[in-house]
Amino acid sequence: MTAIDSSQQHAYDKVDTVHMTLEEVRALSTRVLEHYGFTRPHVEAVTETLVAGERDGCSSHGLYRLLSCINTLKAGKVAPDATPELHDIAPALLRIDAKGGFSQVAYLTALPHLIDKAKALGIAALGINHCAHFSALWADIEPLTDAGLVAFACTPSHAWVMPAGGSKPLFGTNPLAFGWPRPDKPAFIFDFATSMVARGEIELHRRAGKPIPEGWGVDAEGNPCTDPATVLDHGAMLTFGGHKGSALAAMVELIAGPLIADMTSAESLAFDAGAKVTSMGGELIIAIDPHRFLGAQAETELARAETLFESMVAQGARLPSQRRYLAREKSIREGVWISKTLYNDICNLIR
Amino acid sequence: MTAIDSSQQHAYDKVDTVHMTLEEVRALSTRVLEHYGFTRPHVEAVTETLVAGERDGCSSHGLYRLLSCINTLKAGKVAPDATPELHDIAPALLRIDAKGGFSQVAYLTALPHLIDKAKALGIAALGINHCAHFSALWADIEPLTDAGLVAFACTPSHAWVMPAGGSKPLFGTNPLAFGWPRPDKPAFIFDFATSMVARGEIELHRRAGKPIPEGWGVDAEGNPCTDPATVLDHGAMLTFGGHKGSALAAMVELIAGPLIADMTSAESLAFDAGAKVTSMGGELIIAIDPHRFLGAQAETELARAETLFESMVAQGARLPSQRRYLAREKSIREGVWISKTLYNDICNLIR
Repeated sequence: MTAIDSSQQHAYDKVDTVHMTLEEVRALSTRVLEHYGFTRPHVEAVTETLVAGERDGCSSHGLYRLLSCINTLKAGKVAPDATPELHDIAPALLRIDAKGGFSQVAYLTALPHLIDKAKALGIAALGINHCAHFSALWADIEPLTDAGLVAFACTPSHAWVMPAGGSKPLFGTNPLAFGWPRPDKPAFIFDFATSMVARGEIELHRRAGKPIPEGWGVDAEGNPCTDPATVLDHGAMLTFGGHKGSALAAMVELIAGPLIADMTSAESLAFDAGAKVTSMGGELIIAIDPHRFLGAQAETELARAETLFESMVAQGARLPSQRRYLAREKSIREGVWISKTLYNDICNLIR
Repeated sequence: MTAIDSSQQHAYDKVDTVHMTLEEVRALSTRVLEHYGFTRPHVEAVTETLVAGERDGCSSHGLYRLLSCINTLKAGKVAPDATPELHDIAPALLRIDAKGGFSQVAYLTALPHLIDKAKALGIAALGINHCAHFSALWADIEPLTDAGLVAFACTPSHAWVMPAGGSKPLFGTNPLAFGWPRPDKPAFIFDFATSMVARGEIELHRRAGKPIPEGWGVDAEGNPCTDPATVLDHGAMLTFGGHKGSALAAMVELIAGPLIADMTSAESLAFDAGAKVTSMGGELIIAIDPHRFLGAQAETELARAETLFESMVAQGARLPSQRRYLAREKSIREGVWISKTLYNDICNLIR
């Protein structure tokens, strides 16, 4: 479909690499974030998501993000010392005001309360508000599946994506994630953009001087366009799956925007005001306790989910997070390889 | 994309039509269902969904379904006199056992309780169990948006659809629906199959002796196939949007299957045992009260959703249920036109 492999998620040359243990990745991220004045909770929470990204082979959510974290800070679009404020707004609902900080500390603060509510009531929802958001949603799903809960998460981004049948950017890349806990196995988790591809994928084609496949974007008039620069600077990206993906993107705008009193992707882009940094806004997370739904039937019923997974794998279908879990095992054993260019760029941040 | 217009949702010739008022549609459905011994609540509830389908221009969920309702009854796969049993299983969770009846009476029985829980707690979920399921999900979403709630619904069907990367049918067409209430306007509602197209669409191509477009199905070995008969009888349908649609289809299997102690699509097809009737199993419905999330901010925040809809419409994108609402206005004013063949087939049921 395209000459550029999506595993090359950042634009750095991977041939010339630096080997790091996960402990070294953690130490480097910590040093950079401390250097720029992030308070202890932010240093730790952001670092853990970057380590998790590198570890799971998602380099676009790994150390690479340190560069945009610092850019976001320099642009004055994230508070390095925010102390989130939790609001218990209804028996089954929480909202946490991140106070302009990155989402991670706010989420970690609210997480035990969300788990408690879901286990007490059967289902509960959390809105994270006023956060700078760049973390992968699977990282927010995992602590919930670890607690034995079924979980959904979604967040708007910047208005880069055209609604099906429209002509102008309006929706964000609006990722949607879902997790299902598995006994004695890593959870079944998917996490995908409702845009056809990630924005970084189109960016990579621009840098490589290559056209993008049809179906990824349109020009300023809403016509099909294969020139990455035109799509990125004047046109719009497309949703996956035509009007169905577009409907899902609209749902994300609504439930992680107005429903939790936070910005849509259009409002987030306006707030960015040309700074081109991390999107600002909210995230919605819903957690369900299967043991409350199933009671004494839980063990038997959850075993039937395992039968479904086995049927998928037996016919050659990959479970959504399989690649990530394989990368994780390998990284824990062998460490990771970071491009030398990226490594130097990060070191330059603290020179 | 294809020579057959998807508005021709049943195989009957539309040229030779019978005009009916909605009251006449209601009376005809009532007579047929009464004739076959459905008890009063089932006659009324099933009839109302058939009337709603005809009224909204969704003929595949209109009177046409009477034929399969009666087939399902004759095959012994639906109880005409089931009295559903409601279980208040956790503060925010309900399950209702449909006792083998059609889903509608069970849903109507549970509905006020679901609304009460969502309004009291902020979010609540309902599992409908052991029902014969054929109703459109938008019909289940509407009473919730009418009550001012945000709602999700999904249900498995029969194992006709291949997981991405697989080779055999495993998932159902697994529809997914979402609704957002709008002040003084019909709700924003989408409802789509996670398969590329509805099964009936492929059936129509078979009857018309026309090949189906690539991307709709595969043969028995999992290879791309454009012969509708091969896809329907020996192969599998495909999900929309590749691995993303496939992930959503798997989610529907899980949350409207094992999570609520009900059948997956593979289990439903096994239960059908060649009878080729309506799928059997469960449905999951989640309702959220935006007023509990937003409190005093509700009016302002919900107005921002209206801005999003206006931005969509202004650039030519259609809101998901727009066509349905236009058909509704017209049908209420002018009545509907039913194919004479269908009308005669239905009348033959009670001759």
